[in-house]
Amino acid sequence: MILPMARPTPLSGFPEWLPGDRAVERAVIDSLRRTFELHGFSEIETRAVEPVTQLTQQGETSKEVYVISRLHDESGGGEARLGLHFDLTVPLARYVLEHAGQLVFPFKRYQIQKVWRGERPQDGRFREFYQADIDVIGAQELPFHYEVELPLVMAEALTALPLPPIRMVVNNRKVAEGFYRGIGIEDVPATLRAVDKLAKIGSEAVIAELVEAKIASAAQAEQVLALAKINGSDESVAQRVHDLGVSSELLSEGLSELTALITAAHERLPGVIAADLSIARGLDYYTGSVFETTLEGHEDLGSICSGGRYDSLARAGNRIYPGVGLSIGVSRLVARMLSADMVRINRAVPTVVLVALAAEEERGAAQGIAHTLRQRGIAADVAPTAAKFGRQIRHADRLGIPYVWFPGRDGEPDEVKDIRSGDQVAATATTWQPPSQDLRQHLVPGEVPGTD
Amino acid sequence: MILPMARPTPLSGFPEWLPGDRAVERAVIDSLRRTFELHGFSEIETRAVEPVTQLTQQGETSKEVYVISRLHDESGGGEARLGLHFDLTVPLARYVLEHAGQLVFPFKRYQIQKVWRGERPQDGRFREFYQADIDVIGAQELPFHYEVELPLVMAEALTALPLPPIRMVVNNRKVAEGFYRGIGIEDVPATLRAVDKLAKIGSEAVIAELVEAKIASAAQAEQVLALAKINGSDESVAQRVHDLGVSSELLSEGLSELTALITAAHERLPGVIAADLSIARGLDYYTGSVFETTLEGHEDLGSICSGGRYDSLARAGNRIYPGVGLSIGVSRLVARMLSADMVRINRAVPTVVLVALAAEEERGAAQGIAHTLRQRGIAADVAPTAAKFGRQIRHADRLGIPYVWFPGRDGEPDEVKDIRSGDQVAATATTWQPPSQDLRQHLVPGEVPGTD
Repeated sequence: MILPMARPTPLSGFPEWLPGDRAVERAVIDSLRRTFELHGFSEIETRAVEPVTQLTQQGETSKEVYVISRLHDESGGGEARLGLHFDLTVPLARYVLEHAGQLVFPFKRYQIQKVWRGERPQDGRFREFYQADIDVIGAQELPFHYEVELPLVMAEALTALPLPPIRMVVNNRKVAEGFYRGIGIEDVPATLRAVDKLAKIGSEAVIAELVEAKIASAAQAEQVLALAKINGSDESVAQRVHDLGVSSELLSEGLSELTALITAAHERLPGVIAADLSIARGLDYYTGSVFETTLEGHEDLGSICSGGRYDSLARAGNRIYPGVGLSIGVSRLVARMLSADMVRINRAVPTVVLVALAAEEERGAAQGIAHTLRQRGIAADVAPTAAKFGRQIRHADRLGIPYVWFPGRDGEPDEVKDIRSGDQVAATATTWQPPSQDLRQHLVPGEVPGTD
Repeated sequence: MILPMARPTPLSGFPEWLPGDRAVERAVIDSLRRTFELHGFSEIETRAVEPVTQLTQQGETSKEVYVISRLHDESGGGEARLGLHFDLTVPLARYVLEHAGQLVFPFKRYQIQKVWRGERPQDGRFREFYQADIDVIGAQELPFHYEVELPLVMAEALTALPLPPIRMVVNNRKVAEGFYRGIGIEDVPATLRAVDKLAKIGSEAVIAELVEAKIASAAQAEQVLALAKINGSDESVAQRVHDLGVSSELLSEGLSELTALITAAHERLPGVIAADLSIARGLDYYTGSVFETTLEGHEDLGSICSGGRYDSLARAGNRIYPGVGLSIGVSRLVARMLSADMVRINRAVPTVVLVALAAEEERGAAQGIAHTLRQRGIAADVAPTAAKFGRQIRHADRLGIPYVWFPGRDGEPDEVKDIRSGDQVAATATTWQPPSQDLRQHLVPGEVPGTD
């Protein structure tokens, strides 16, 4: 194949990494995977496409859907229109319905896949990116305790990464709805949409909007704002809500859930998870807890991990499947980790040892040495050509390979050189062992360590 | 979100696995990854889309391309048309051109990603499937020895999997072209296309086609068939070609390459790689060695791993990038491994221990035990509800979790039960260790072991 072309230019919104940066992304994904599996989540992967009719049930995202079609469609349009999934929740709901008879509930699954959104690729938004999701899906019912467990799993997964401190905030639909109804507000979704603008437009403007749109009286609007200003990580949160003098059964239920969550979170991961009753995003479709997560010093990224409780993720006939789930926007997070130099990889290639070559005729013997090292789990490569040793060492250096192996000639022993220190010692491929920190690619702190 | 729907039906050609089968697929991919990295290949991932103009340069596959478009395109069609990649070679060529200034050559990369082809999903063909590719790309030049190294890496990667014996066959464009030209045939591609039908239509029909289409005389066609019948795994292959009495410089070069390859392969992996001069598939676009691989007893799958040498994978101005690469069709292979019961996973979930719950109030303590186990690398979960112990044990059993942990009450020690044997012993979460074969998910032989 010949692909003659001018140097191609990147496609905006479709990130691609050089090998060293891809190794960072993989290390992040492997770390997430490890945490999820330690907590008993099974991996699934769903196909990249869903029927467009399923993808467009949520009006807001429908305009972002990429539809696929065959270049020369010979089906006469008889096949269902398919689109690329824009998240991993719609596919999960479909997967659960399709395979319900073969799954064990509660079904704990994780899923790390690319998703596609045809948005304008501005403000660091990607059109193709990795999401990492965990969800627990119940059949007919799902105990509340998963609303405590899942944010803790995600907080643990995020704190295992070389990141600045994370702050996860939680609210509960029942608190907001119970409170609003308790003071006589009827249009809960409109109230939530107004409160969602609080950080952007401020209290006065939110009150004005609620009053002008006749969603709330001035007194009700003041109460709504008073609720939104409550936050904290202990039982005083519930007390301060009680102090506002509003009560309803739904509010009590919400407050006891919220208190149980932040109390358990404080015991396991002190200082990471707090209640914030101004959080309104997602409360229009979640039915219980709702979660958002920011990265200290990188609040401009928005929420790096969000989710919540659905009483009905999916439904078929009289079977309903409630769920709790959270999702990390992996590509955006990794892009920031790289651009802010929070982290690097110790070397761009997996290779630990480059076996040098004095002459092309010795390639077979050199491959034999490399083979022996590989059988012992040590990644090894042989020099591309029998160039001068200085050039072979420079090749290793450019790739970040730490050791160059010199096969012994005329009965001399082999020697291995640490090209960082220059130390060179006699070695045997059947016994030589690199220090454990050199054995594999792994993350190392960047110039601006995230955990400073 | 509510997704009311009837039970959805699978989309033909878009395979999806239950958690246990996905764990098999992942174990296969992880095994391939490990072999590739031990040989010094760096991973890259490319975006899922390429400009349609690049995807359709090869006429044969252009009708399989899936084009993507935004559901509500507001760009006025001003953006370049994009399609999903149908292999990983076109994206690699583009990636190399785009990032050439930041790559070290020879560039050894592996890539394991899904590709999409809008074919009719018949005969087990998938529309979405994983490919696993390794390639070495040179800048301006690439030594022949990579044509020896790469098939050996793939043979090693495949033999590391629980498969029946594989058989990799190799031919060389220079042998075929040098021989055909040496006997006076001018239309080499047409001759290759005819020879490619040999297994399907037989010698007589191939000869008839060559003669009727005036590609070769009857005597030339007999020579073509005599060449195609040669195969073997030692130097006698070259001798038998010489015995046909044809000579040309190109033929000699091809034979010496082919001999070097099978000789080295015989030393490293005896019995796996052989020359087969009837192989014509791909010789019309590869420029040197060409590889195909079949699985013993599963020849109906076709080639599970193919590739070859390109003298010019990509070109920009006067820079050319030659390459050698091979590709495994992972999804088709895994689908067969599963359907033929060659292999299974030891359990469907990552969980080693389910901590039982005598009462819901003890969930915090149970989570503490699970947390202690996880910190020691032991995947642990807590029972979904404080049901009767028998029901909790059945839940573990259905998931394949081998151990159930019973927290001690009233000062009694904790106990852990191996639910396969029924053995139950006192245990402490800070010290208990499962046998190493229980620690992680791993492949186990199926009912019909592939390696029988």
